[in-house]
Amino acid sequence: MARIIQKFGGTSVGDAERIRNVARRVVDTHRKGNEVVVVVSAMGKSTDDLIRLADDVSNGDYPREMDMLLTAGERISMALLAMAIQDRGVPAMSLTGSQAGILTTSEHGSAEILDIRGDRVRAGLTDGKVVIVAGFQGVDPVGREVTTLGRGGSDATAVALAAALDGDVCEIFTDVDGVFTADPRLVPHATKLDEISFEEMLELSSSGAGVLMARSVEFGRRYKIPIHVRSSFHDGNGTWVKEETMEEAIIRGVAHDASEAKLTVHGVPDQPGVAAAIFESLAEAGVNVDMIVQNISIEGVTDISFTVPKAQLATAVSIASQAVKEIGAAGFDVSENIAKVSIVGAGMTSERGIAARMFRILAEHGINIEMISTSPIRISCVVRGDDVNAAVRSLHDGFELADEPQEEKV
Amino acid sequence: MARIIQKFGGTSVGDAERIRNVARRVVDTHRKGNEVVVVVSAMGKSTDDLIRLADDVSNGDYPREMDMLLTAGERISMALLAMAIQDRGVPAMSLTGSQAGILTTSEHGSAEILDIRGDRVRAGLTDGKVVIVAGFQGVDPVGREVTTLGRGGSDATAVALAAALDGDVCEIFTDVDGVFTADPRLVPHATKLDEISFEEMLELSSSGAGVLMARSVEFGRRYKIPIHVRSSFHDGNGTWVKEETMEEAIIRGVAHDASEAKLTVHGVPDQPGVAAAIFESLAEAGVNVDMIVQNISIEGVTDISFTVPKAQLATAVSIASQAVKEIGAAGFDVSENIAKVSIVGAGMTSERGIAARMFRILAEHGINIEMISTSPIRISCVVRGDDVNAAVRSLHDGFELADEPQEEKV
Repeated sequence: MARIIQKFGGTSVGDAERIRNVARRVVDTHRKGNEVVVVVSAMGKSTDDLIRLADDVSNGDYPREMDMLLTAGERISMALLAMAIQDRGVPAMSLTGSQAGILTTSEHGSAEILDIRGDRVRAGLTDGKVVIVAGFQGVDPVGREVTTLGRGGSDATAVALAAALDGDVCEIFTDVDGVFTADPRLVPHATKLDEISFEEMLELSSSGAGVLMARSVEFGRRYKIPIHVRSSFHDGNGTWVKEETMEEAIIRGVAHDASEAKLTVHGVPDQPGVAAAIFESLAEAGVNVDMIVQNISIEGVTDISFTVPKAQLATAVSIASQAVKEIGAAGFDVSENIAKVSIVGAGMTSERGIAARMFRILAEHGINIEMISTSPIRISCVVRGDDVNAAVRSLHDGFELADEPQEEKV
Repeated sequence: MARIIQKFGGTSVGDAERIRNVARRVVDTHRKGNEVVVVVSAMGKSTDDLIRLADDVSNGDYPREMDMLLTAGERISMALLAMAIQDRGVPAMSLTGSQAGILTTSEHGSAEILDIRGDRVRAGLTDGKVVIVAGFQGVDPVGREVTTLGRGGSDATAVALAAALDGDVCEIFTDVDGVFTADPRLVPHATKLDEISFEEMLELSSSGAGVLMARSVEFGRRYKIPIHVRSSFHDGNGTWVKEETMEEAIIRGVAHDASEAKLTVHGVPDQPGVAAAIFESLAEAGVNVDMIVQNISIEGVTDISFTVPKAQLATAVSIASQAVKEIGAAGFDVSENIAKVSIVGAGMTSERGIAARMFRILAEHGINIEMISTSPIRISCVVRGDDVNAAVRSLHDGFELADEPQEEKV
């Protein structure tokens, strides 16, 4: 008998028929003698519908009430799923984030999980029930206010619950078959990975792989909970994200991210504290700076380039324009037509020349590199946005990531 | 400064524009220096939509999960209203039934309010906020389970909150102008009442007047909270339901109810305990028996007639058919084509001949009376369902309840 935490996203519970299908899978797992805890998101596009309703009603930004509003979504899907499971003769019970004891920080819309009590979840399991827990939501124990975890929050709920409940595995059901060597929409012959280490998955997630959010991977890594990313459409094996992997591979996959924009501040006086001034202001405004590159100083001045989410570009620009004046820089420019392409693999720690091979592959395909950043198991290059598809394909083929060699398309 | 509890039903918050209109009214009341607590129902037909979704997902009856599901409805409307009020510059906060400390019994779908803590409501008012509370829902303090109060539950929430908070008035906003001398759909010249006593309103509500549920009136009566039933479309005065009324009237209004069916058990042995056996079985099965009439015993046997909600007719019939065997009765029959028409008025306690006048009016209009039941301030007659409209109109005119005498329509 295993204790299994299963997470189903909004698409998987998008309508009545899909909810019944999820119930069937949950009941199958339960009937095999496992204890099952299910984490669900809101149905399909219902979160978007609620946000639209709020926009219709109000012009303001009221995070507390927005959380109250949005948490209605999982309440609906979890209650319906509990009914569908009971229809199949298995006792089931739904719990809100608050009822499940998911304690968070107080930041509405982007709360972090602090602790999971889980008393009522454990009691339900002891009673032989399938326990369904609302994803994405929790409660701030100080103010007793309902909170939401922000994007990808349901995955985080599932992995954190698995950790708190000493689960054997956290199964993330999704509309793809698992984690691929590259985005299959860009690289049709991309291969599904059977296994990947937490560290590699963390780098892939941080580099744009949308299948799993980095915060969930980090939870799994910290509490050693294997995460099985698998299809909600069939029973086949997906990708296991875990501590150690049997397979050896230099490069595990190629990730890309076109959601960022680049800012370059020109003619920055090369003095201590100048860079700090810019990035402190950005951090205070809540702007998530990703890559930072500073050129070699020439004649006492330098250029600093950095990337930020396009959604935060307006804020970043206003801060940059202020900083240019304060630090006496020459000016700044902005490019939205960029994308980041990354290769990730634990094997590159023991293999030399991976970076050089990456740059050569891109050069051979006429792709110019604008910025470079590296970690021990990742190399990322910023390229022109128009070049990203070609960059992903050429790296995937150049590092021979497909199961079988592909013929070059003419 | 007064402490005012305002309740808006589903129609009043049916879409974004209506929610903004409600916000405007609430803010007007707040700006006049009053403390305002708002109770809201779920938006428009959203409860029906959720019930339909549950029917699509499941064939079973899962009251706990149904309550979890349905309470999402008020969560949405209350959060949206809190946003719309804050848009107008007035601080506001929404609270679920559980957060507001609305403690109930544990019967899912038909819980009764036991107590209202209201600590967070009071704290919000102290902070100068408009506090919005979800109607219709509460929490069972023993099992810590979310409950709903059943039909008309939001009115009950509002009046009970007014009692718990020492409110000065509970305003029930609705799509009619107030309480009328008869249903204006049947009697176009029916008159709006300016005032009515709790006792009279209780009888009207119990006799089919849908504008206010009896349980809400009972709360108002017990805790002496004046209830102002008024239109959500304009600012005019509605009907005040309160302890004592200035106006003297023999008959306050005519109510009718076509939602019941009649069962008659024939040839019942006229022995002690026989009637008890039937009605105990019905009570155990949760059937709400309304009127009971037993004919005079002839040769040791009698007939017993009673009315039950049509929705519970199947259960009542199966119990009656069992009871007929057990008590050795001759048989039973059922009529769905019935309706109850009632006249209500505190004045009838001091006036003789009211019943006789009612029966004569009905007889003059060729309407046969099948059952009669009375209270000190009410007389109800069961008539054929086809006759109910004529019965209501003839009684309204016969007791001269219109403001101005009406010419008989030819």
